[in-house]
Amino acid sequence: MNSKDRAKKAAGKKAAELIPNQSIVGLGSGSTAAYFIEELIERCKNGLVIQAVASSQESKKIAESGGMKVLSINEVDRIDITVDGADEIDDQKQMIKGAGGAHVREKILASSSREMVVIVDSSKLVKKLGIRDLPVEVMQYGYLATEKKIISLGLDGKWRKKTSGEFFVTDNQNYLYDIHFSSPPSDLSAIHKKLLLLPGVIDTGFFQNIAGRVIVGYEDGTSIIQS
Amino acid sequence: MNSKDRAKKAAGKKAAELIPNQSIVGLGSGSTAAYFIEELIERCKNGLVIQAVASSQESKKIAESGGMKVLSINEVDRIDITVDGADEIDDQKQMIKGAGGAHVREKILASSSREMVVIVDSSKLVKKLGIRDLPVEVMQYGYLATEKKIISLGLDGKWRKKTSGEFFVTDNQNYLYDIHFSSPPSDLSAIHKKLLLLPGVIDTGFFQNIAGRVIVGYEDGTSIIQS
Repeated sequence: MNSKDRAKKAAGKKAAELIPNQSIVGLGSGSTAAYFIEELIERCKNGLVIQAVASSQESKKIAESGGMKVLSINEVDRIDITVDGADEIDDQKQMIKGAGGAHVREKILASSSREMVVIVDSSKLVKKLGIRDLPVEVMQYGYLATEKKIISLGLDGKWRKKTSGEFFVTDNQNYLYDIHFSSPPSDLSAIHKKLLLLPGVIDTGFFQNIAGRVIVGYEDGTSIIQS
Repeated sequence: MNSKDRAKKAAGKKAAELIPNQSIVGLGSGSTAAYFIEELIERCKNGLVIQAVASSQESKKIAESGGMKVLSINEVDRIDITVDGADEIDDQKQMIKGAGGAHVREKILASSSREMVVIVDSSKLVKKLGIRDLPVEVMQYGYLATEKKIISLGLDGKWRKKTSGEFFVTDNQNYLYDIHFSSPPSDLSAIHKKLLLLPGVIDTGFFQNIAGRVIVGYEDGTSIIQS
């Protein structure tokens, strides 16, 4: 395990320790969330009783392979706590997510939960969001026309493709347009709102006022909780 | 044919007369647009040459059954003119659409066109939008949690169902939540923007700054063009 994975695992383990018995837990997606799910599986083997809801097919698969029962989000009347990673997080707990392509469902799940606990390795802490790309989920119908509208906002990016060259398709059957900033923008919230107004744009990877506690993992295997 | 159908047909026929030769035409959806498509098929049989793009599977079917070749929106480099109906239109040319459930694709198509021509019978002209319901397209994933968020905005509505009792599912595989207003709201644009900010909301049936010429059909079979 390399040192970044050690940091991710430390954050995931700490989050798993926070999960109360009998709770309904939202499972995030991506590499850090996968460490959390693995640690949660261990706790369940040791007697923790929970119900789980997943934000992606991938997370569902990991949880089920560990013997966890995963419910549909539409089957539960509440979600107590969702644990998920972030690509970038600033000191206002604003985030960019979506490098894994699951940010639309992740946002629905996290924003529907009583608390979202964010788990990151320390490389994800930024002073200003926008060093990494902002993923935008776009409907396939008319995607080239939608791209023109995005560009007309003064933004620039590229369609996410698989290594095979085919379009990356989300669990919602949409495409992803990754917006690249030459430098972090002064007002990402305003850009997010402009993008949402475009017909064909489903949602972006910008998360505002959703994060609760933040757990930061470090390469030495330690972690701290920021609330 | 009843008098309302006569008005719809008059508007559709007038719109068909406006279509230039060699143009790429966007086909709206719904009963008034269907009259337009039928009139357009007649013009094509009489020598008009166009290419068509459809906003719904239903419109595609009508056009193709008349021998029209329908391209995918992603195959064309421009759309010259789109003709579509509206559920309500005010004197600022703001509209509510979506009674037929195709408003998200209709908005992508219309907003990507050089001009959207609106065709309505005179019963669709309103002083203030919001007499009819505002349809909101919502992702199936977490739709009950999304409903709670809509209600927390002080709005109220119901899920659109088929007569069989099953959920109505859009061409985009989403559900529709029809918001009902006890009286027309003072600022529908602000409500639309708040709804777009909710995770899980795809788009609403509110159309602003999209309509070009408006053709109003009357029950006596006449029509007028407002520009």
